[in-house]
Amino acid sequence: MARDLTSLFDPASVAVVGASDDPAKYGHAVASQALRAPDRRPVHLVNRRGGTVLGRTAATSLAEIGEPVELVVISVPGAGFEAAVDDALACGAKAIVGITAGFAEAGPAGLARQRAIATRVRDAGAVLVGPNCLGVADNTTELYLASDRFAPGAVALLSQSGNLALELQLRGTPHGLGFSRFVSLGNQADVTLVDLVEDCARHEATSVIAVYAEDFGDGRAFARAAADAGKPVVLLTAGRGTASARSAQSHTGALTTSADVVAAACRDAGVELVRTPREMTVVLAALSGGVRTSGRRTAVFTDGGGHGAIAADAAEDAGLDVPELDAPTRDRLRTVLWEQSAVANPVDLAGMGEQRPLSYADTVAELLAAREVDAVLMTGYFGGYAASDGGLGGGPAGGSVLAEGETRAAKEIVAHLALMPKPLVVQSMYPQSPSCRLLVEGGVPVFSATEDAARALAAMTGRATSGPGPTAPTGPSGEPASGLSGARECATSAGIAPLPAPRPPLTDPGYHPIRALLEEAGVPFPRAREIVDEAGLLAAAGEFDGPYVLKALHLLHKSDAGGVALRLPDRAALLAAYRDMHARLGAPSYSVEAMADLSDGVELIVGVNRDPRFGPVAMVGLGGVLTETLRDVAFSLAPVPAGRSEELLRGLRTAALLSGVRGRPAVDVTAAAAVIERITAVAAAHPELAELEVNPLLVRPDGAVALDARAVLG
Amino acid sequence: MARDLTSLFDPASVAVVGASDDPAKYGHAVASQALRAPDRRPVHLVNRRGGTVLGRTAATSLAEIGEPVELVVISVPGAGFEAAVDDALACGAKAIVGITAGFAEAGPAGLARQRAIATRVRDAGAVLVGPNCLGVADNTTELYLASDRFAPGAVALLSQSGNLALELQLRGTPHGLGFSRFVSLGNQADVTLVDLVEDCARHEATSVIAVYAEDFGDGRAFARAAADAGKPVVLLTAGRGTASARSAQSHTGALTTSADVVAAACRDAGVELVRTPREMTVVLAALSGGVRTSGRRTAVFTDGGGHGAIAADAAEDAGLDVPELDAPTRDRLRTVLWEQSAVANPVDLAGMGEQRPLSYADTVAELLAAREVDAVLMTGYFGGYAASDGGLGGGPAGGSVLAEGETRAAKEIVAHLALMPKPLVVQSMYPQSPSCRLLVEGGVPVFSATEDAARALAAMTGRATSGPGPTAPTGPSGEPASGLSGARECATSAGIAPLPAPRPPLTDPGYHPIRALLEEAGVPFPRAREIVDEAGLLAAAGEFDGPYVLKALHLLHKSDAGGVALRLPDRAALLAAYRDMHARLGAPSYSVEAMADLSDGVELIVGVNRDPRFGPVAMVGLGGVLTETLRDVAFSLAPVPAGRSEELLRGLRTAALLSGVRGRPAVDVTAAAAVIERITAVAAAHPELAELEVNPLLVRPDGAVALDARAVLG
Repeated sequence: MARDLTSLFDPASVAVVGASDDPAKYGHAVASQALRAPDRRPVHLVNRRGGTVLGRTAATSLAEIGEPVELVVISVPGAGFEAAVDDALACGAKAIVGITAGFAEAGPAGLARQRAIATRVRDAGAVLVGPNCLGVADNTTELYLASDRFAPGAVALLSQSGNLALELQLRGTPHGLGFSRFVSLGNQADVTLVDLVEDCARHEATSVIAVYAEDFGDGRAFARAAADAGKPVVLLTAGRGTASARSAQSHTGALTTSADVVAAACRDAGVELVRTPREMTVVLAALSGGVRTSGRRTAVFTDGGGHGAIAADAAEDAGLDVPELDAPTRDRLRTVLWEQSAVANPVDLAGMGEQRPLSYADTVAELLAAREVDAVLMTGYFGGYAASDGGLGGGPAGGSVLAEGETRAAKEIVAHLALMPKPLVVQSMYPQSPSCRLLVEGGVPVFSATEDAARALAAMTGRATSGPGPTAPTGPSGEPASGLSGARECATSAGIAPLPAPRPPLTDPGYHPIRALLEEAGVPFPRAREIVDEAGLLAAAGEFDGPYVLKALHLLHKSDAGGVALRLPDRAALLAAYRDMHARLGAPSYSVEAMADLSDGVELIVGVNRDPRFGPVAMVGLGGVLTETLRDVAFSLAPVPAGRSEELLRGLRTAALLSGVRGRPAVDVTAAAAVIERITAVAAAHPELAELEVNPLLVRPDGAVALDARAVLG
Repeated sequence: MARDLTSLFDPASVAVVGASDDPAKYGHAVASQALRAPDRRPVHLVNRRGGTVLGRTAATSLAEIGEPVELVVISVPGAGFEAAVDDALACGAKAIVGITAGFAEAGPAGLARQRAIATRVRDAGAVLVGPNCLGVADNTTELYLASDRFAPGAVALLSQSGNLALELQLRGTPHGLGFSRFVSLGNQADVTLVDLVEDCARHEATSVIAVYAEDFGDGRAFARAAADAGKPVVLLTAGRGTASARSAQSHTGALTTSADVVAAACRDAGVELVRTPREMTVVLAALSGGVRTSGRRTAVFTDGGGHGAIAADAAEDAGLDVPELDAPTRDRLRTVLWEQSAVANPVDLAGMGEQRPLSYADTVAELLAAREVDAVLMTGYFGGYAASDGGLGGGPAGGSVLAEGETRAAKEIVAHLALMPKPLVVQSMYPQSPSCRLLVEGGVPVFSATEDAARALAAMTGRATSGPGPTAPTGPSGEPASGLSGARECATSAGIAPLPAPRPPLTDPGYHPIRALLEEAGVPFPRAREIVDEAGLLAAAGEFDGPYVLKALHLLHKSDAGGVALRLPDRAALLAAYRDMHARLGAPSYSVEAMADLSDGVELIVGVNRDPRFGPVAMVGLGGVLTETLRDVAFSLAPVPAGRSEELLRGLRTAALLSGVRGRPAVDVTAAAAVIERITAVAAAHPELAELEVNPLLVRPDGAVALDARAVLG
């Protein structure tokens, strides 16, 4: 159940404990901010030495205030923090913002202190943000309890770094980006990222949730909250380069890194994952407008060939398609442009803009109206005619007629967009020019860098590719209609499959118990018997026909150790292989199996690892000798529904192998996906399994069969 | 031989034909610029109506000037261009800049006109830039014959797009970038990109050559000129997304795209290839400083954990390494920092900067001095203390002590860098702050975006990886020493292998003639005989032992058509295979071959295609069924020396297969590289071959052998 954070974001009264006149102290910055809205709610300043702070009489303690305080900010030296919390709770506080540092981030003792404090706060029915945080702000309730001012707007910013939050705030300004709320996450001793995402999802004035996080806490709950938010969530995080510790025992362990897990969870949850503050700003500017579509067919429109070519490449680099426009669209464009103009895509005015500035608007109108166009990227000089102080530098002189025409074109573009809302992004050499400002005010994201414009458009398009989310409405002809929806309707792309109830735990992670567990769940295996001697071997061989496979059990990497013999045509060969293998390896037991038909098959690997933050995470990929070399694998939170499994397989670099290459028949990917669903469901229902791996999962034109399996208990 | 462009860049006198008072005409803009340096050389304005232009008396014709003019700019309507050229030559012009458009870009008739004009100009001993260009400027000779002003500096800009040149100029300003020369390439009817690169290479005031080109003309000559320039060349181009037409006949054709060719030529020539104007600006800012190194070991240094983590990821994304610092360096850092600071890498001041701003400089000094550090990326808040008008927005208030400290730190950083020149790049939230301006003036590139800082550092490091260029000097201990060199010493990375003299052309591109050609050049093949009937088949089988291979010849994709039979153990099997194959395919001839030992082998593909601009281009990659699926291939201009061939193979994604995976032995990559050198040399010496392909080239632990070959005549 979501936590009630009303006392945190809209308290009836506030006190700042540790308020100070010393500008070097954080209590000074917070108190100054708190006093920006003196009429909204009582703001009490507390300093144990009393006197005046910021021209006000400071109380020497919370008790001295003499009335209840709903929210208390605590910015005192570490030793006094517990006492301040107790005072706050005694004073009736329902929300505490802990600025004071020196807790979990300082070591185990600090973590213990922090846990005890959180318990006290929760027991009192209150909530605690921090400790070791930089404060909270809510522009919608005039609550200013952080050191920085955040321009008002629709982005809720939840950040584990104060400086990155500051950078995002500075970067947002030129794009007209503002913030509904800011929360410095701190150590998340009580109020977590998940609580805050859930609350911001309900917060009407927030249209996009921006997160910088290093510690996801309950990562799966974060993914679920983001998927269910009903509005876009954009995540900036780090750690791609510092691969998780590798497990030498398991391919899955060797291939899964925490960055892969975060990326998989984001894809599953429909979260936009970004790598830098600049990319975060670009995506926020794109998503704040609200227009999104599921298609990626992009018209590139320029007033100069060089810009058009560079932008077309940048669009394709960002995952957009830049197809040739249909003949009717080209014909209509010819009627509004002149002979020199290019109309195929990129569309290039080629001088027409200077002849008639409104041709910019006419072209945008035609492109927005074209059925085969999902989105428009306009690039180049536009903005330069009216640039009095162009963003990149001074605009060119003269041309007030052109400037006026350009301004009118900007207004018309905004009007066209209102009638036919499709994603439209502009790259301009003069992003700060009056015409470009008109576009920004009209909801058109404008960037100075081509790659930023392309990235923005990618964030506004193609949502359907990230999961079984809403797809484009279909027009009467069966072709995709415009496929538009507001951000609110379109944000949830997939949802996170719920974890199944735990099954009775497996105690013996041997090969045959694992096989049995998987077979029971519907995973097909060839027939097999575990044996410990020659008599058992011959009995097993009597149960099914050859060719046989013999595997030595209870060995790591049995294949490398010579513990697997394939294609044993008959009992004699099986017996000979057993004697040889047993003499070499002396394994405690062996598995006799019916050899599967490998012809026309593709070997896959399916593994599930248990991530401490995100729970069971599945990896599927190309198996066999190329697994480690190619690292052609995809990740998803487990259990993975069959439809999602098929998407993962179809998205592999080597996916063409599944469809048949060089005259080979296609294999049954649907069957493989169904098996993957079962394998990942078993892993998810057995939390005692740290790892579960089927390798290879052989998929043939007529189905899929697991040829080996292993597990590691946690 | 390089062309003499003195008359173009430093003429004794200039005339602008088509000079105008009408601001809408280009002749107005050029004439206005030309008059900016009236004392440097005579500037004559010509307008056929005479009168005054820009307050000067205009001549009605060049002849009317009455004295020779060395350089003539022609900006007249298309119909009058030839006459103007003739007038200019009659007037003694040695350089003509053709602004007028409507030539090659308008179709075949325009191309013919343009060619005739170029011939006339060359016959007169003059040079022509354009037509269809936007002019020329040389800040070192006060020659201003383009519509835009270019701030003076060390970058020579050669551009096929006027608007992109304008954008680069606008973007360069905040980075202190200026231009030595600007040439609008236009249609390159006479003076080409290659001529200009060669001239700028000799131009002392130019330290970096920046190119935007869509048409490379003689691409190989461009690559050679760039490789030989002795200074960095940075290339912005487009066309990655518009793949070249694919040849269904050939894997090489199917895999080679023009973008791959350009990228290969750039790697071979040591040219920095960039994708957008922003990236171009970042790389120019990085290379203008001149400090480059061959190592990529990067220390990330921050004043905030979030920025450090994001920057470490960005550095690794850009191809840099961020290894843990050595213990002695960590110890030294601890002496200048405090307990909370992190010293492993990233190095994080963690509040020390506010305690003692000079700790920024001390840390930089320690990092520059560390033997295990090739380069330093500083990231975060630095600049904010002194920011009066921070680049991204207003800086925080107060802290003049901190501001003064920060300014001193900036000065000390510049001083440390002068003593220990290693690549140092700064990302700052306040790039325009006084402290950051001090850094820029001191030669330290400063960026507001983390990914830009990382990209810049990548351009300044690791040059040795792109070819057999200069490597880091080795210290007495055998470890790499600082490995530094100025840009001039380090720019040429590889050089372009010369084309061999053409050999007598091959007229029959059949399998056996191709084999013979390659065998003669030292490419090993299994024994083989071409046969046309059963008698020939049996005679061939008598010449060498089985197992045999039988191939039907003169079929496309004989493998897919069932025209290859492998592992035929004896004559009987060979005969049976022949009868079956001949009945099915009725091929005109067949090849009987000794079957190679495939065990422990890796199949490669080696192809050479002839690119219209870059000549023979080699592709090497993983062969076999995965060739098309994985597209794991690398390109290089042919012929490819063995050392470079080995680099290409070692750089494949699947290179691990060559070193042996899962207990397989490593294969003889050196032998494969030697064979690739021979194959690509044959292709380069036979310009009549549009394509030459060896697929597979089998590499085993004991050598490499070609198992099949094909060629297409051009």
